[in-house]
Amino acid sequence: MKNLNLFILPVVVFLTITTVINGGITSEYVRQAQPSVEMPLETFPSPPGYNVPEQVHLTQGDHDGRAMIVSWVTPLNLAGSNVVTYWMVVNSSTSTNSSDVKMAKKKAHGSTSSYRFYDYTSGYLHHANIKGLEYNTTYIYEVGSDQSVRQFNFTTPPAVGPDVPYTFGIIGDLGQTYASNETLYHYSNPKGQAVLFAGDLSYADDHPNHDQRKWDTFGKFLEPCAAYQPFIYAAGNHEIDFAPEIGEPHPFKPYMHRYPNAYKASGSISPLWYSVRRGPAHIIVLSSYSAYGKYTPQYLWLQQELKNVNREETPWLIVMVHSPWYNSNNYHFMEGESMRIMFESWFVNSKVDLVLSGHVHAYERSERVSNIKYNITNGLSTPVKDPNAPIYITIGDGGNIEGIANSFTDPQPSYSAYREASFGHAVLEIHNRTHALYTWHRNQDNEPVAADSFIVRNRYNLLDDERI
Amino acid sequence: MKNLNLFILPVVVFLTITTVINGGITSEYVRQAQPSVEMPLETFPSPPGYNVPEQVHLTQGDHDGRAMIVSWVTPLNLAGSNVVTYWMVVNSSTSTNSSDVKMAKKKAHGSTSSYRFYDYTSGYLHHANIKGLEYNTTYIYEVGSDQSVRQFNFTTPPAVGPDVPYTFGIIGDLGQTYASNETLYHYSNPKGQAVLFAGDLSYADDHPNHDQRKWDTFGKFLEPCAAYQPFIYAAGNHEIDFAPEIGEPHPFKPYMHRYPNAYKASGSISPLWYSVRRGPAHIIVLSSYSAYGKYTPQYLWLQQELKNVNREETPWLIVMVHSPWYNSNNYHFMEGESMRIMFESWFVNSKVDLVLSGHVHAYERSERVSNIKYNITNGLSTPVKDPNAPIYITIGDGGNIEGIANSFTDPQPSYSAYREASFGHAVLEIHNRTHALYTWHRNQDNEPVAADSFIVRNRYNLLDDERI
Repeated sequence: MKNLNLFILPVVVFLTITTVINGGITSEYVRQAQPSVEMPLETFPSPPGYNVPEQVHLTQGDHDGRAMIVSWVTPLNLAGSNVVTYWMVVNSSTSTNSSDVKMAKKKAHGSTSSYRFYDYTSGYLHHANIKGLEYNTTYIYEVGSDQSVRQFNFTTPPAVGPDVPYTFGIIGDLGQTYASNETLYHYSNPKGQAVLFAGDLSYADDHPNHDQRKWDTFGKFLEPCAAYQPFIYAAGNHEIDFAPEIGEPHPFKPYMHRYPNAYKASGSISPLWYSVRRGPAHIIVLSSYSAYGKYTPQYLWLQQELKNVNREETPWLIVMVHSPWYNSNNYHFMEGESMRIMFESWFVNSKVDLVLSGHVHAYERSERVSNIKYNITNGLSTPVKDPNAPIYITIGDGGNIEGIANSFTDPQPSYSAYREASFGHAVLEIHNRTHALYTWHRNQDNEPVAADSFIVRNRYNLLDDERI
Repeated sequence: MKNLNLFILPVVVFLTITTVINGGITSEYVRQAQPSVEMPLETFPSPPGYNVPEQVHLTQGDHDGRAMIVSWVTPLNLAGSNVVTYWMVVNSSTSTNSSDVKMAKKKAHGSTSSYRFYDYTSGYLHHANIKGLEYNTTYIYEVGSDQSVRQFNFTTPPAVGPDVPYTFGIIGDLGQTYASNETLYHYSNPKGQAVLFAGDLSYADDHPNHDQRKWDTFGKFLEPCAAYQPFIYAAGNHEIDFAPEIGEPHPFKPYMHRYPNAYKASGSISPLWYSVRRGPAHIIVLSSYSAYGKYTPQYLWLQQELKNVNREETPWLIVMVHSPWYNSNNYHFMEGESMRIMFESWFVNSKVDLVLSGHVHAYERSERVSNIKYNITNGLSTPVKDPNAPIYITIGDGGNIEGIANSFTDPQPSYSAYREASFGHAVLEIHNRTHALYTWHRNQDNEPVAADSFIVRNRYNLLDDERI
C-alpha cells in the first residue's frame, strides 16, 4: 500500500449484533475497509536537547529473567552515548542496611551500530544487556550523557517457578495509527508486567521505499510502554523489509538492527526463533518467514526446545508465531497451513497451552482443536476437538494502517470459538500452575470491560475432571 | 549416521516380482537395509604433479546457455591457478576461414576462495564464468598452469527454442559408493547433454564432523562426467551441513563454496533457488530447506518466475526440488507436504510438465494428480487426476551410503504410477514442443534397458485429444 492519504477520516459503523453459529461466536461488526489513519511523522519529534536518547525499549536479556536488554537511539555516537546506568529501588520499609550498598549505581556499555536502507541512514542504535539482576526488584535506569540523560524504570520478574503469579499483555500488528494509540493507551502500565508482541511493529514497509523514519517514529510511539516493561517480540511479515528492487535484499535488516534479543541463551542461532522463561511461563517464539522444513535450523531447534521445556518449573507453555494456523477470516485464510503441517503434532504432544498469532487484523479465539490425523490418502483433514491441543489466539488487532480485516468465512467453522473485527489487546493473568484468566479488550469499550474472556486451564496440570 | 563401517558387504536379495495395485505398479524388490558401501578416500588420489587442478565440474553460467561456469580446486593458490583457457573446436569440413580467428584461445579468470569447516581447510576453489559462447558449439578448455595443465571439453546447447531436441540426464542422491559408481557409469557421455541433479551430492555429513574430505573425493568421483557437461543442481538436505555443535552454524556453507551457479541471471537473491533455460526447457530449481512461506524471498521469486516463463520459447517447464511432494515410500513420507501446500496450485495453473525430486532412496513416478481443492473444513484432501498437473518423479536412487529405501506404503496409493526400490538414473529426451521420451534405468540391467518409460506429452502444447 503506497501513498496513502494519512488524513482520510475513517467511516466507521458499528453494528453490535452478535451471532452464535455452530457454538462459535461471531461478533458482527461492519466497518468500511478504509485504512486506519497513521499518526504523522511530526507527532513524534525527537526529545529536546543535545544528543538525547530516544526510542528506549526493553526486552529480556537472558533465558530466565535476570537480565534486561536496554535499547535506545542517539543522533550522534559520542563518549557515553552507549552507557546505561542503573540501580535498585530500595523499599525503605523493608530495607535496613545502608543505602551505599543497595543504591550502588552500576553501568553497562551497549554495542552500537547504524544501518543504511536505500536513502536512509539510521541513528546510532545502542543495545546494552544488563545482567545479574535480582528477581522481583525494581530498577531505575538512565541513558544518555550528562546534559541529555533520561530516566526510566523496570521491575524484574519473580524467579522462575510454577506458582508465581504473572501477568502478560498480548498485542499484535500494532503499527502507529490513532487506533494503535488507543490500543497502547488501553494497555497501560501496570496492567501487565511484560508484553508478548505477536509481530508486525512499525509498518514502515507500507510506505514508499520502506520509509525507515517510520521505524523511528514507531520506537518513539512505543517508548512510554516499552521503556518500562520488556516486550517479547515475534517477527511478522512487516519486519522482513525485503526490497531487492531498491537494493535491499537482506530480510529482517532493520528489525534485527533495532530489536535484538537473547536468542543464544536458548540455543538458537537466530533472533527470529528463540525462547525465554519468565515467572511461570516458557515462551517459544517462532518465525513464519524463515525456513521451517525438516532438517532446517529452526526445525531442529524447536524439536530440541520442546524437549527442554520443564513443566514442573514452568507449567505454562506459550508459543508465538506471526501467521495464525487457525484463522477463519478471509484475509490470510490458510496462510499458516504450511507451518501447521510441520509442527502441530508437536504442539499437541507437548500440550502447549496457548498459541498467539497476529497477521489478521481482527480478533479470533479457537476451540481446543487439532488436525493431525491426516495422511495424503485418508481424507481425515478436518479439525477435531482435542483436550491436548492449544487454544489459538489471533490478535493482529493492534490497529495498524492497513485497517480492519472485516470479512469472515461463512459459516463460522467449528474450530472458531469467538471472532470479531475490532481493534484491541488481551491480557493473560497467570494465577498458579493450574489456572489463568485471559481477557480480550476492544478499544471502543471502557478499558476494564472484557469483550471475550475465559479461564485457561493448564494443559500439563490438567485437573482430572477435564481429562478424557 | 556416524562411524559407518565402509567395508560391510551388502547382502542383496533381488525379487523381481512386479505387482500391479490400483493401476499403479510396485516393482517388488527386497534388499537388506544395510548401508551401501562407500568407496574409500584412497580411491580418489589427487592427480599427480605439482598443484594440479582437480574436481573439475561445469554448470550453466547464464540464463540461456551461452555461458559456462568452470569450477576446479588447486592445492595452492599460485599465479595462473585461477585461469581457464578455452577455444572452439572447428569442424574443418564446414569451416573455410583461417584458423587464427576460429581457433583463437581465450582466457577467463576465476574467483578464488577457500573455507574452513571444523578442523578442515579446503583447497583453493576456483570458479570462472566463461561468457559469450556460441550456441551448439564444442569448446576445449584447460585449467592449471604450465606443468600441471589438464584439458577437457564441453558442447554448448542450441539456442533456446521450442523445437530444439535436447536430452537431459536425471540423477539424485548420488553419494560416492560402489552403487553410485554404477549409476554414474551407466549414465555415460554422451547419453545426455546436461544433467539435472535433484540434490544430495557427497554425503560428507554422514561422516564424523561432516568430514569435508568427502566433498573433495565426491568432486573427483564426479569429474569424469561433470567436467564434460553441465550439471544443474538443486540443494538437498545433505548440502545443509548445519553443525552448530562443532561451531558450524551456517547452512549450506561447503555446498555454496563448491557449487555456485548463475542465480542472479534469473533475478534470484540466492543460489538455492534459480532458473536456467536450456534448449527447449525452462528449469526452475527450488530449495526445500530455505524459507518458502508467503512474503519470503523464495516465494516472491517463484511467483514472479512463473510469470516470466515463455512457453512459446521454452515449451518444457521442469521443476527440481529435493523433497518430493508425492512419495509413497515410508521413508520421508509426507515430508514435502508443507511445501506442496504452498506451491502446488501454482504448478497446476502454470502447467508444469515434470517435477523432479530426490531425497527418497528409491524410484517413483506419479500419475498426473493434484490436491489443491482442500480448505481446512471441506475434507477435500485426496489427490485427484488432473491433466494440468505435473508428473512427479522421485529419483533419489543414485546409490548413496544410506542404502535403499525399501519400505513402500501399502496399498500403493492411486497417485503412484510406478515405484521400485532400485538404484538407477533417468533420461529425458525432448524431441520437439509436444513430445519427449522419458526412461528410467536401473543399475542391475544392461544400460540400454528402460525399466520404466513413457512418452511425456507437453502440457502447454497439449494435443486436443488429451484435453478434457
